[in-house]
Amino acid sequence: MRALAERAKAAARRLSHADTAQKNDALERMAQAIHEDREAILSANAEDVRAAETERKGEAFIDRLRLDAVRLSGIARAIDQVRALPDPVGEVTERWKRPNGLRIEKTRLPLGVVLMIYESRPNVTSDAAALCLKSGNAVLLRGGHEAHRTNAAIARAIARAIAAASLPEDAVQLVPTTDRAALLELLTLDGLIDLCIPRGGEGLIRFVAEHARIPVVKHYKGVCHVYVHADADLKMAEAILLNAKTQRPGVCNAAECLLVDRVVADAFLPGAARALVERGVELRGCPITVTLLHRAGIPVRPAAEDDWGREFLDLILAVRVVRDLDQALDHIARYGSEHTEAIVTRDSASAERFTREVTASAVMVNASTRFNDGGELGLGAEIGISTSRLHAFGPMGLRELTAQKYVVRGHGQVR
Amino acid sequence: MRALAERAKAAARRLSHADTAQKNDALERMAQAIHEDREAILSANAEDVRAAETERKGEAFIDRLRLDAVRLSGIARAIDQVRALPDPVGEVTERWKRPNGLRIEKTRLPLGVVLMIYESRPNVTSDAAALCLKSGNAVLLRGGHEAHRTNAAIARAIARAIAAASLPEDAVQLVPTTDRAALLELLTLDGLIDLCIPRGGEGLIRFVAEHARIPVVKHYKGVCHVYVHADADLKMAEAILLNAKTQRPGVCNAAECLLVDRVVADAFLPGAARALVERGVELRGCPITVTLLHRAGIPVRPAAEDDWGREFLDLILAVRVVRDLDQALDHIARYGSEHTEAIVTRDSASAERFTREVTASAVMVNASTRFNDGGELGLGAEIGISTSRLHAFGPMGLRELTAQKYVVRGHGQVR
Repeated sequence: MRALAERAKAAARRLSHADTAQKNDALERMAQAIHEDREAILSANAEDVRAAETERKGEAFIDRLRLDAVRLSGIARAIDQVRALPDPVGEVTERWKRPNGLRIEKTRLPLGVVLMIYESRPNVTSDAAALCLKSGNAVLLRGGHEAHRTNAAIARAIARAIAAASLPEDAVQLVPTTDRAALLELLTLDGLIDLCIPRGGEGLIRFVAEHARIPVVKHYKGVCHVYVHADADLKMAEAILLNAKTQRPGVCNAAECLLVDRVVADAFLPGAARALVERGVELRGCPITVTLLHRAGIPVRPAAEDDWGREFLDLILAVRVVRDLDQALDHIARYGSEHTEAIVTRDSASAERFTREVTASAVMVNASTRFNDGGELGLGAEIGISTSRLHAFGPMGLRELTAQKYVVRGHGQVR
Repeated sequence: MRALAERAKAAARRLSHADTAQKNDALERMAQAIHEDREAILSANAEDVRAAETERKGEAFIDRLRLDAVRLSGIARAIDQVRALPDPVGEVTERWKRPNGLRIEKTRLPLGVVLMIYESRPNVTSDAAALCLKSGNAVLLRGGHEAHRTNAAIARAIARAIAAASLPEDAVQLVPTTDRAALLELLTLDGLIDLCIPRGGEGLIRFVAEHARIPVVKHYKGVCHVYVHADADLKMAEAILLNAKTQRPGVCNAAECLLVDRVVADAFLPGAARALVERGVELRGCPITVTLLHRAGIPVRPAAEDDWGREFLDLILAVRVVRDLDQALDHIARYGSEHTEAIVTRDSASAERFTREVTASAVMVNASTRFNDGGELGLGAEIGISTSRLHAFGPMGLRELTAQKYVVRGHGQVR
């Protein structure tokens, strides 16, 4: 593992000042190579899927693992999209001059070597490779063992493309083994690996955080709330709630809990709850919610204490009536995961207070929680969504894969 | 320790949205309280100094520990300087609009709870308290046991000031014990402590990095090079070199190694070496340097392999003649510490290549390495200099004690 990381570090040094045209050439060849190798990749994937079926992995698991011609084109297209994004390396983010004449700039440089740890989605292999290459970082890819044949086939195509563009092949390396001991060794290579990004279930992320001796940007769960304020446009609130809960319930920026101001609970809850139930959502309510919905003949069960702050990732919603904005803020501070929080209100003072006081990577006013996404926010592409506040908070795009250094130009200044 | 950190976390939530006037009021009172308590602080310090003398700590150690009336005024003045800096919290760093009408901002928020770990300098207690308070962070201060009485006296003054400004007293807490077990416990309080900043000797920092389960921004050693390029103004190069090596040799941004292009070695080295030796600098040279200086009758000893990449923190300089810019870049990549690197040249292409290819928190062109400092770069004040690339690289001022969140304002947008 050390030799692997040392090769990555050497490649990172060369890649850190490769010019944009050369990196774009490599990305173009990567998309082509994946197209050329489609049969090999799909047959490797078919083997992985067969093995997963034999091991009786769940349906959702196999769906994440499975590739077909359409998904493979999507993978190639995603690489093309990264190619089209501006190169962050060398970008000057600030400039100023000191009284002694020193001219100071902050400019972006790559982080170095990124260790990407993920589970069964093979598209992460190519997405992470493309984002890291464009941002001048070498990457070590450590995917789940269930996708290993697929990942290896994708990595072979990528390596060929990088070499053809005269960039160091070691810039993108698939970790050849998926055993835990090798992972543990990688996690201790301080000085060789600059950042570890684990993506996947909470168990994996906690394992990485526990054992890493290298910096980790974490991507824990999303327990997102929609708070319907006393002064909300109730039709807008219902549309946002339905979108946040049901458009794609299995993702981290889906809503898991509704908070309703008691002033509007009577007017809002029965209608919104009926619409949710019609879309197959199970409701778990606080005592006031239960009373109110039972009276309206809408099915709801009492929420248990551990339903607050729970990431259902499913068509289940916790519902609580709150006294006021203060109680909503307290609830979010206590049970939220600092991922995405939304308020629906027409009152700008309440909106401002909510945006100021809520700690979350994205705070939404009158918009769905589902917009906390690199593509939707305009970052182009993302390698994940960080709920750490250190280094990156929210979607990590190309810029979040860079650091900034000071460049100071003088004419002989001394202290 | 957990209870201490929980109180800090509760205080951090309140402090995170305290307004600027209230924080400035607390800072003003802090400086006053330190003035009012000067006798108590100085007598606590006298006890610490006596104990350190009994334990036969070195002179340099006791000098770092010792306070007098002048240093105490300096401490109060430093707090006033932090008060005068702009409040980073709430600053909007970027704004853009999406095609669907969503208005997106990135705004600064505090990190949360900072754990500051340091050794014998009591001024770190008040500096860190002031910087954290102004940036809306709660701080746990864990100083060295040799300064504990002094730190406790300073912390009492600070606590009184914060309470008088109606901010939560727990925003600044001195860890009441300096034993290792308590430190180890603090280092595992993931979820309560958001960032650990160790400042001090390499041993302390490695200990923290090894045991921390919370994010650490590291401040390792500074092995700074001055590279005199073939096209350097040699008078300027000498002035920069003398300043970088001798103005304050015991600090991390002092030069430890001179690289001289062989084209100018004859013209530059004897004169520069003589000036260094006159200022008491011991030279350790590569074979070419040794030959050249012996011929000129200047004392120099052969450099051992471990003199390259060594942080002398003393009047000692390693000197190497290099073939060209490439060899200088290779040397710096191999032996540098990514802290500060300088080139002296009139050739803009070489300067640009150096600034692009060198990975260091600050890259200097025709200026002394000593300018890599929060005050000198215009940040106002610093809590330390990071050589991590993650989160902060270089001097950490108020802004580096913040994260950024997305604030998204819509009018009912859904996906």
